[in-house]
Amino acid sequence: MPQGPIERALSAVPDVGGEMMALAERLYPLPRSLTGAGVRETLRLIGETIPLDIAEVASGTVTYDWTVPAEWTVREAWIRDANGTVIVDGTETSLRLLGYSAPARTSLSGAELQQHLHSLPEHPDWIPYRTSYYDRAWGFCVTERERASIDPQASYDVLVDTDLEPGTLTLAELVIPGETDEEVAVSTYTCHPSLANDNVSGLVAVSALARYLPHGTLRRTHRFLFAPSVIGALTWLKRNEERLDRVYAGLIVSCVGDDGPLRYKQSRDGGTVVDRAAALALHGEAGSIIEPFVPWGGDERQFCSPGFDLAFGSLSRSPHGAYPEYHTSADDLDLIGAEALAGSVAAVARILDTLDADRTLKRVEPRGEPQLGRRGLYGSIGTGLPTDDERRAILWVLNLADASHTLVDVAARSGLPFWLVRHAASALLDAGLVREVD
Amino acid sequence: MPQGPIERALSAVPDVGGEMMALAERLYPLPRSLTGAGVRETLRLIGETIPLDIAEVASGTVTYDWTVPAEWTVREAWIRDANGTVIVDGTETSLRLLGYSAPARTSLSGAELQQHLHSLPEHPDWIPYRTSYYDRAWGFCVTERERASIDPQASYDVLVDTDLEPGTLTLAELVIPGETDEEVAVSTYTCHPSLANDNVSGLVAVSALARYLPHGTLRRTHRFLFAPSVIGALTWLKRNEERLDRVYAGLIVSCVGDDGPLRYKQSRDGGTVVDRAAALALHGEAGSIIEPFVPWGGDERQFCSPGFDLAFGSLSRSPHGAYPEYHTSADDLDLIGAEALAGSVAAVARILDTLDADRTLKRVEPRGEPQLGRRGLYGSIGTGLPTDDERRAILWVLNLADASHTLVDVAARSGLPFWLVRHAASALLDAGLVREVD
Amino acid sequence: MPQGPIERALSAVPDVGGEMMALAERLYPLPRSLTGAGVRETLRLIGETIPLDIAEVASGTVTYDWTVPAEWTVREAWIRDANGTVIVDGTETSLRLLGYSAPARTSLSGAELQQHLHSLPEHPDWIPYRTSYYDRAWGFCVTERERASIDPQASYDVLVDTDLEPGTLTLAELVIPGETDEEVAVSTYTCHPSLANDNVSGLVAVSALARYLPHGTLRRTHRFLFAPSVIGALTWLKRNEERLDRVYAGLIVSCVGDDGPLRYKQSRDGGTVVDRAAALALHGEAGSIIEPFVPWGGDERQFCSPGFDLAFGSLSRSPHGAYPEYHTSADDLDLIGAEALAGSVAAVARILDTLDADRTLKRVEPRGEPQLGRRGLYGSIGTGLPTDDERRAILWVLNLADASHTLVDVAARSGLPFWLVRHAASALLDAGLVREVD
Repeated sequence: MPQGPIERALSAVPDVGGEMMALAERLYPLPRSLTGAGVRETLRLIGETIPLDIAEVASGTVTYDWTVPAEWTVREAWIRDANGTVIVDGTETSLRLLGYSAPARTSLSGAELQQHLHSLPEHPDWIPYRTSYYDRAWGFCVTERERASIDPQASYDVLVDTDLEPGTLTLAELVIPGETDEEVAVSTYTCHPSLANDNVSGLVAVSALARYLPHGTLRRTHRFLFAPSVIGALTWLKRNEERLDRVYAGLIVSCVGDDGPLRYKQSRDGGTVVDRAAALALHGEAGSIIEPFVPWGGDERQFCSPGFDLAFGSLSRSPHGAYPEYHTSADDLDLIGAEALAGSVAAVARILDTLDADRTLKRVEPRGEPQLGRRGLYGSIGTGLPTDDERRAILWVLNLADASHTLVDVAARSGLPFWLVRHAASALLDAGLVREVD
Repeated sequence: MPQGPIERALSAVPDVGGEMMALAERLYPLPRSLTGAGVRETLRLIGETIPLDIAEVASGTVTYDWTVPAEWTVREAWIRDANGTVIVDGTETSLRLLGYSAPARTSLSGAELQQHLHSLPEHPDWIPYRTSYYDRAWGFCVTERERASIDPQASYDVLVDTDLEPGTLTLAELVIPGETDEEVAVSTYTCHPSLANDNVSGLVAVSALARYLPHGTLRRTHRFLFAPSVIGALTWLKRNEERLDRVYAGLIVSCVGDDGPLRYKQSRDGGTVVDRAAALALHGEAGSIIEPFVPWGGDERQFCSPGFDLAFGSLSRSPHGAYPEYHTSADDLDLIGAEALAGSVAAVARILDTLDADRTLKRVEPRGEPQLGRRGLYGSIGTGLPTDDERRAILWVLNLADASHTLVDVAARSGLPFWLVRHAASALLDAGLVREVD
Repeated sequence: MPQGPIERALSAVPDVGGEMMALAERLYPLPRSLTGAGVRETLRLIGETIPLDIAEVASGTVTYDWTVPAEWTVREAWIRDANGTVIVDGTETSLRLLGYSAPARTSLSGAELQQHLHSLPEHPDWIPYRTSYYDRAWGFCVTERERASIDPQASYDVLVDTDLEPGTLTLAELVIPGETDEEVAVSTYTCHPSLANDNVSGLVAVSALARYLPHGTLRRTHRFLFAPSVIGALTWLKRNEERLDRVYAGLIVSCVGDDGPLRYKQSRDGGTVVDRAAALALHGEAGSIIEPFVPWGGDERQFCSPGFDLAFGSLSRSPHGAYPEYHTSADDLDLIGAEALAGSVAAVARILDTLDADRTLKRVEPRGEPQLGRRGLYGSIGTGLPTDDERRAILWVLNLADASHTLVDVAARSGLPFWLVRHAASALLDAGLVREVD
């Protein structure tokens, strides 16, 4: 299947999957949270390959119903037993400490300590990922075995040397201008710590797309957005309120590294341009799934809230909550792979190519069929397909070039692959038989 | 499944089915017709439990294409053989005499008498129900065996001592005011004589609903209407022409006492608010049936005629013409039962509860998701379901609170039970996150 | 099934199929092409039965993207071998010479001659039908066996004594005025030479329809159009641009003589009045097929181009490209038959009857059901069906007589046969209960 320019650019990279895995290995250990040094270091590493535009938004900034939280800094955190032995080191991995744990220095009984521990009874060797962003609390995430070893009568010392001080929330963007300022946005979230599929995979996938997207040849402007979940998305929306009418479509990319099937979740309306483009782009993708919108999941909760109602879909493999390792220490680098990541970015590229190639056309002289023969359009137009197939595509484009159908509509109605429709449209534009309309 | 206020009120009655059967036994023998003493006695008995508002409309009153007929009074009616033996007593049951039989006093041969007899060859022991409302005639309804015993050569005496004189047609209503004067109407017909399912069942079901409907807590005004078929419905429509824009929805309740499955027949449009409410309300009702509109049946022929086109559906069990005992003496008290009647009024109550709880909501701040946690909406909202289910309902209501979806739409799109959606909407209204719009 | 007036008129002809076959035998041999004597002789023969209105349009006339071509005249054409023996006579049948062959007189080697021959490897005894309307060329159509006998080294003489000179393109029409000037058009193409199904069958079918269509009783004006494909249809459109808003619906009739099932191809929109009428008309036709629009095939490419977008459907049996004999000498008179032709014209007549009988009705008094009994509409209305069926039709027409449904809509929604709906509508119009609206 011939590729559009974005997919072609990614295919031209010798080992885009390997490149993504290499970046994933560097990003995986960093202590990401809603704010703070882990996020900044993550963006610094991504920034080595693409020129990110960073914005820092002060704690306390109000964004709709939410407020940018204090910045969280972790210096040291542990639980010691009566012998002074550290039995849990809160900085061992970025999952160990309850996210946004408030400072604490205390001695308490094992029974009391249990109230501050989080574990997974059904997976005794895994450590869960837990946060307390909006309720002030402290806690540690432990294995079920560690938890069982706590003696309720014994005394334990706890140190949580953290700061929750005014700071900033970090947003990063890369904008690649197109011919028009109509925008296609690709977004992913930066706030999850050492979890590989959720969402180191999204970070490296969006980085690769941003790195290899062709410059200077695409119709629409492409915006790549890295932001913490919920508050990050909302902060971006707030800062861009005046420009949201430029957003033609958007795609949230996350959890794209495991070996689950590709899964596209529709926008709120279910029939927006991104939904129709995704349906065409995933059509040939064996096992891929298209799911209707539901108002839970990721940042579609914000982009698709009724006050914005943007045409944002989501692409993932095994998504939020749908795999056993979700939000546990078992969501590690073994869960993701170069091939799955490469397949995911190819699928995103195909959706973006479809969106970028979509056009509304109008016949210059709409009455009757034009003479194709004298314009060289009755023979091959160079797709490599039989000319009969090419001619069908040409006739469909001509017939629906009435200013009320787009090329995506032509492909959907005709059942022809989008790339063939796009090729036919090109030939007809070159021949001056159709012209673009807004 | 938690109940709405109307269903709950009915459930609180110790034996609503038994109560309905007790009333049915009193109503069954009464000689009802389009007009007259049988209807008035029926309404008097119903009026012992609910304060009916009675209107008498004079014979000759023109209502659209129809005219209120003369009032029919039966004093005596019989067929005697040559020996003077009464072989058919026209007042034995209210089915014996052709409805609206004109007066007659004559002697005639058995052969001539046959022209005035109605029987059922396929059910030799049953007596049919027949009327001649608009053609002046007289006749007797007999068993096939009685008919066979008539000697064509013998002479018979006939007396039909009836009056067809100017009088009145009787309408009865009960209005229970709600917060608004938008109305939900529940209607049934009073004109059928000793037929238990058709329609003593409707009379007792609507009586029970009217008796137990909560006062002072419902949004909409509820109107319960008892009227003879066709001419009664039209007379009501004519008298209320100026107020029909207040009718939000209506439900015709009849033939609800037998053991057939619940059957909802849609309004003319097929997608009105009562159709959507009924689909949700009957969703969990095993074996229940939803049927498209057809322009025959009961008073939907009037309410759903193109000049009114009201959102009236119909609820029945085995309806008009769809059971062998229909319009015969076999449609007797053995055909109906307390359990079926109780199930029917519960289903009507569920439809009414759905209609009354339906709202169009709008987010106060529609941009982004609100913080549920700080409003206590992230934990249980008290439905008894897992909080995950509750949260889904909350998120759906928030997402569709855009002034263009009602709660019925939310339930239909989300697949969640209406009561859960209603509960979530309540919690969100209480939290000030959504408000009602018209 | 009771018939409408057009079908009835055709049924009254003692042997309409035999009549069509007799005309087909006379038309089959004529050397038709886009222009010229063969077309004129064809129209002269058809004109023996119907009063055609002939228009001649000069070569060079520009019609949208096309130009009326030079007129083609064939005097003599042959290939001779070195012995002077004629091995292919280009006038033997009208398929032998490449359509629109330019004049040539040359000697050339067998190898060179091969470039000018057309044959069918998969059918060695058949001669293909080929044209070169818009590229100047000459050629002969031969059997595969004839082609194999050409000696590449030998020398051959070729004569193509043709003219491509300014002349005219011939259009023929017959208009049968109705009560209104709203038009239903029936069109077929005249340009195909000795091919029986494609399209002698269309010529004789449209001739029979034009001959027997009742005069003076139909609502709409009917126009029968005989024109060469593409350029003829476009020329007609160009000449009638100002009047196209009168075209209510159209039907292209071609390839209707073989024993394939009836096949209706929808107009571009898929839901126009002709599509809905055809669906009803073909409903009872065993094995008939309804196909969605595609922008290739016959003159629907012109009538349904976006600048016209007329409600034109197409009726055929085995259509363009869908039978092995298509565009070969095997599409001969043995392929078509009187019975298939008669069935085809009956189906067209049923579609035309449906279109002509379609009405938008409105209740005179739309409130409530009218009293049918006192207007004689409660008993039989004379269709021969049980009165229950008749009453259903009457009730459906009354219920949908709201100025926004047509009788075709009533039939589609009710599932009742169109003729029964039409009959019920007639009875209601006669009774003054409904009236027509535009």
